[in-house]
Amino acid sequence: MTMWGTIATWRMAHDGVVDASRQLAAGGTAGDAVEALIKRVEAYEYYKSVGYGGLPNEEGEVEMDAAFMDGDTFAQGAVAGIHNVLHAVSVARALSHEHYNSFRVGAGATKYAQLQGFEMVNMLTPRAKKLWQQRLAAMRASDLSPYDGHDTVGAVTLAGNGSMATATSTSGLFMKKAGRVGDSPLSGSGFYVDSAVGGAAATGLGEDLMKGCLSYEIVRQMAAGKTPQEAADQAVYSFAETLQARYGKCGEFSLVAMNNRGEWGVATNVEFTFSVATADAAPQILIAHPAADHQTRIEPITQEWLDAYERRIKAPID
Amino acid sequence: MTMWGTIATWRMAHDGVVDASRQLAAGGTAGDAVEALIKRVEAYEYYKSVGYGGLPNEEGEVEMDAAFMDGDTFAQGAVAGIHNVLHAVSVARALSHEHYNSFRVGAGATKYAQLQGFEMVNMLTPRAKKLWQQRLAAMRASDLSPYDGHDTVGAVTLAGNGSMATATSTSGLFMKKAGRVGDSPLSGSGFYVDSAVGGAAATGLGEDLMKGCLSYEIVRQMAAGKTPQEAADQAVYSFAETLQARYGKCGEFSLVAMNNRGEWGVATNVEFTFSVATADAAPQILIAHPAADHQTRIEPITQEWLDAYERRIKAPID
Repeated sequence: MTMWGTIATWRMAHDGVVDASRQLAAGGTAGDAVEALIKRVEAYEYYKSVGYGGLPNEEGEVEMDAAFMDGDTFAQGAVAGIHNVLHAVSVARALSHEHYNSFRVGAGATKYAQLQGFEMVNMLTPRAKKLWQQRLAAMRASDLSPYDGHDTVGAVTLAGNGSMATATSTSGLFMKKAGRVGDSPLSGSGFYVDSAVGGAAATGLGEDLMKGCLSYEIVRQMAAGKTPQEAADQAVYSFAETLQARYGKCGEFSLVAMNNRGEWGVATNVEFTFSVATADAAPQILIAHPAADHQTRIEPITQEWLDAYERRIKAPID
Repeated sequence: MTMWGTIATWRMAHDGVVDASRQLAAGGTAGDAVEALIKRVEAYEYYKSVGYGGLPNEEGEVEMDAAFMDGDTFAQGAVAGIHNVLHAVSVARALSHEHYNSFRVGAGATKYAQLQGFEMVNMLTPRAKKLWQQRLAAMRASDLSPYDGHDTVGAVTLAGNGSMATATSTSGLFMKKAGRVGDSPLSGSGFYVDSAVGGAAATGLGEDLMKGCLSYEIVRQMAAGKTPQEAADQAVYSFAETLQARYGKCGEFSLVAMNNRGEWGVATNVEFTFSVATADAAPQILIAHPAADHQTRIEPITQEWLDAYERRIKAPID
């Protein structure tokens, strides 16, 4: 049987994983599948940390970061702090075809998307605007830390022909400062893939992920012979300990990895859901827990968890 | 004797290396020394790829990228596409003290610098403007590739107390598209340092450097026991070959590295000057050449080379 596979961060990626696995099963390319996966998440208005419906920065502007990498050629495209673009991942993928100017930020990134004819919309949904206004009021009333909701969608795909790809997309930290960029568009931190080895993608506090270049580190460890699970556990737990010791604190982070045989792994220092599918196993949502023995514990998601999630993301906002 | 040292990319870094080595010899910190080194380059108007006098993007705007990393704590700060700031490296260093929002791009980065009171000037010197106008005219007359002059200053410092730091600063590719970002502000690609091991910094075509995360790779190889020279040679030559094979082309790149014993190394796929100083050896400018045996050949710079360089950077522009 031809092996193919895909793995992506968070429960929100599941519908995209279903789409991508259909494409891959039908002989689709790794690049097309990973773009389709991410676009599905970007388009869904109830996911408040990615794309349409994503929460804005402290000034009320939705600023997005995204990246795309081709594991055959190492070609990369990325955008950071881009505005008004429905599918930041598609802009990143278009940029990956350029040898020069393949990473664009701010107004220059938005201008590129306009000139290339990408669909532009007002990304601030009424729901996201309400959440932003509520948070502003809450922050005025207390010294609440505004920074949460850093749930990037990151995915890795393996196509039947052995090609791999990875992509990420996020609206970043809720209430971030204007122009703040996390790990998602940064090679080696938010994503990395080498079709000769495997790929990895990250979600979590970007400021800490980039201190460790964790996606590159996981791919490197797979290249040295570790399974994706061993590589992810080794990279995540040891860096989290090092950062705690040397920096005095360590944000939350979670990484998914897949090698070029369709084997996969996940490591996290916080409860973390993800979705995975391979030629051998239908798409499923799983939940990972950090464990004291430095081996991530993974179990199926419960219907109860899924129901509560559905209620939470669609809860009315007063 | 207490060991200290510093190494930095290009001949242009030499005066900064002299400044930094004085500071380090007198017990200065790694962070202060590397910032002083980079500021010296940023302030000099005849260096047309860094700071004041740097060449603008295709729209005539000088857009700068810079980063700072503390090897003790892994704390990082970075800016990309920032405008009108005399010392982008100092803005990056200030951001490295923040746990959140430590990487800022575009208008948000410039706003941060304004609010924090950093010195702002018109970074487009008359000389740089003239060079830009000439290039525009030349591009209209032919299909000349506009992209050269990607000479980032990147430096690594080791202080007598064992602490290390690294920093980078660049105005990026001449004639780049608005918002284009290279490797310089990207952790693991443009720079990386771990005081328990060593550090590395890069210059060259950022789009290709980020495909290989070469600064992180060199530090990783030093951690595995290689000397800085072995680590740099191994990382640079093997990735250049891989990229040529897989991507079909490979831009120019050069990396400098130093470990926490003050040993240093350099590897490059193009003729490359750099400056280095340690407690054992006075500041000197050296020139590196790629070699067929995958061992970089390093020799002292000649007075003839230095004289020609001086004439070249100050040549009248009609």
